[in-house]
Amino acid sequence: SLRRLVQFATVGTASAWRWRRPYLLVGMATVATSGAALALSIKRENWPALPLPAVVKSASVCSAASIGRPQHWMTDPVSETGWLCDPSNSAEPRVGMERLCMDLQGRLCRAMEELDGEARFIVDKWARPSGGGGISCVLTDGVVFERAGVNISVVHGSLSQQAVRQMNSRPDRHKLPEGKELPFCAIGISSVIHPRNPFVPTMHFNFRYFEVDDGKGGVSWWYGGGADLTPTFLDKDDATHFHRTLKAACDKHDKSLYPKYKAWCDNYFVIEHRGERRGVGGIFFDDVDSPNQPAAFAFVSSCADAIEAAYLPIVRRNMRRGYSYADRQWQLLRRGRYVEFNLVYDRGTKFGLFTKDARIESILMSLPPLARWEYCHDPDSDPVKAQLMRVLREPVDWA
Amino acid sequence: SLRRLVQFATVGTASAWRWRRPYLLVGMATVATSGAALALSIKRENWPALPLPAVVKSASVCSAASIGRPQHWMTDPVSETGWLCDPSNSAEPRVGMERLCMDLQGRLCRAMEELDGEARFIVDKWARPSGGGGISCVLTDGVVFERAGVNISVVHGSLSQQAVRQMNSRPDRHKLPEGKELPFCAIGISSVIHPRNPFVPTMHFNFRYFEVDDGKGGVSWWYGGGADLTPTFLDKDDATHFHRTLKAACDKHDKSLYPKYKAWCDNYFVIEHRGERRGVGGIFFDDVDSPNQPAAFAFVSSCADAIEAAYLPIVRRNMRRGYSYADRQWQLLRRGRYVEFNLVYDRGTKFGLFTKDARIESILMSLPPLARWEYCHDPDSDPVKAQLMRVLREPVDWA
Repeated sequence: SLRRLVQFATVGTASAWRWRRPYLLVGMATVATSGAALALSIKRENWPALPLPAVVKSASVCSAASIGRPQHWMTDPVSETGWLCDPSNSAEPRVGMERLCMDLQGRLCRAMEELDGEARFIVDKWARPSGGGGISCVLTDGVVFERAGVNISVVHGSLSQQAVRQMNSRPDRHKLPEGKELPFCAIGISSVIHPRNPFVPTMHFNFRYFEVDDGKGGVSWWYGGGADLTPTFLDKDDATHFHRTLKAACDKHDKSLYPKYKAWCDNYFVIEHRGERRGVGGIFFDDVDSPNQPAAFAFVSSCADAIEAAYLPIVRRNMRRGYSYADRQWQLLRRGRYVEFNLVYDRGTKFGLFTKDARIESILMSLPPLARWEYCHDPDSDPVKAQLMRVLREPVDWA
Repeated sequence: SLRRLVQFATVGTASAWRWRRPYLLVGMATVATSGAALALSIKRENWPALPLPAVVKSASVCSAASIGRPQHWMTDPVSETGWLCDPSNSAEPRVGMERLCMDLQGRLCRAMEELDGEARFIVDKWARPSGGGGISCVLTDGVVFERAGVNISVVHGSLSQQAVRQMNSRPDRHKLPEGKELPFCAIGISSVIHPRNPFVPTMHFNFRYFEVDDGKGGVSWWYGGGADLTPTFLDKDDATHFHRTLKAACDKHDKSLYPKYKAWCDNYFVIEHRGERRGVGGIFFDDVDSPNQPAAFAFVSSCADAIEAAYLPIVRRNMRRGYSYADRQWQLLRRGRYVEFNLVYDRGTKFGLFTKDARIESILMSLPPLARWEYCHDPDSDPVKAQLMRVLREPVDWA
């Protein structure tokens, strides 16, 4: 697998042709938050906590200290620390992406621990038998955060013939050669944060990078990601702040990006059977492989760098507000809708659940700790709830 | 629609060829618990609470009193009361099935109200613009029952060309003529009961009857249904009692039925990504159209008649047991698994959610009032939880 890694490193930027694969891409994003289990109780998931696969094990060759591993990382990375921290590799996209993930995970988890004041993240490092692994950071039952998960996964292996066929069955895309397995690599970070206070919105983001052997001696690559906000009570200032921060990150690269990715987000997070969106949106993008590799990575980096500024001030501003039993019940009901979206519509979740070798606990970490359903609940009879429902039914231009 | 009703009545038993349609059947069973909305708050569901469609409205011609409507029914039926209660129509399958549904709903709801002692069922009668309607009975926040729903639906209309194509796309089945809409009728009862005490298991059942114009001047018909038990804590006596009661109902007709339908149930209620079943099973059947219409109906009647004897003694026996906070948490976690099955796998739920005109509130009434998710919960470290997990992973021959 190290040879394959080197192969990827060599040809990583060689392929320039554009290639559409939204389904697999989103799917892989979750697999990129999946993989194998630590030491799960579920019988069929009999995965090793240790030893880690070759590429991870060899990390011990270069100690973190000797190559200066950044101190804010939550633990050693999945890939070899020496390779990842060697400045001469910094132009390699997989190095850039894994470092981006490690940096964001470390900064965000530490910032949330500080905000919470009491709870701490547990750090679960897991290996995937078929290649790669991940780092799941989970905070449970905090004062501020009821549950927060920040997952990294670095998965490499071969796309099955079935997966290749599935990719080829999609319209408007270049065809991959069928009849053989194709090496691929997916690196991603994914996070869902469920605060306790109903006045603090839930936030989700993920960023992912994908490379696959195109069967012609080259490699196809693309980035995807996004961030979106799900309030229980609508606060227009919060929604505006969140959107403006993301817009500023996009605008640095191209003024046309935010409107496009904002609309994509509005169209993706729809609970069809309810006729409503999951939240007030944000940005969602996929298939990003232009204008070139460094520029595409720079765009994703800007988005990732904007996460803390977009969300944490909203937490800080609302986390001490008083709330009633009724407020909490409405929060739990909205969380039921969150569950409905994730289990019924989210392509990443569904792809993950139906993938052999997927790490179920990392995929379903997106579900809230507690959710509620009520028969024929009528939010429109309450003006405060109705205010939220209006913007869930009809998206607003927040920025 | 009355003429179509008469047409169904005339040709209802004319078709004898066997016809496989599991997907549509299960789907329709949920649509048979769906239909149209009372006065839902959700904008896109702009359905009338009243007036009821022609077939229902004309019920006022024959008053309930004049034709002796059974007093234990929860309200007037969807179909014309006079037609349903006229003894000379009793051999008509749709009359038999709708009466079976009304009888079971009335008996069960009243029995549960008595057991609960405090809470009462609300009775929601709704009409479907495209034909038919339903009666949803819902008990919420009772002493014994945290939520109980017993839904009837009587839906008639036309299968869309898309639905016909979908049916024809299934293997091993006779083909319906494509390119035209086919009249159909679905009558069913469906129920999920979530008790409050973690020592009282959740129970689900449904029974359904389906007729569709075969495009050749005849009508295809079949029955489906089943009942299954989902405990939080395993009580072998409860599981045995439930299975033996259902087995006795099946055995009256054919000794081969229970083993077949028990296995079908075990294979259906599987949460694939968890590697476990939803509960300790029961029976599940579909495509029942043999040996003939009266015998098939008699079998379904026996099953429906067994519901109270199978479940209510289990409620009575456990409903006053003391339980701890931890017991309740484990119950909520198992309910999270219930949500996962229903939203990810249940064909009826999924078909319902993706059906235009479906009554979402009736479909999602199957979801528990409250559900919980925990990261990497390990039930096997607790011998009591592990006892349940064993039978969820490996079905047991309870009867």
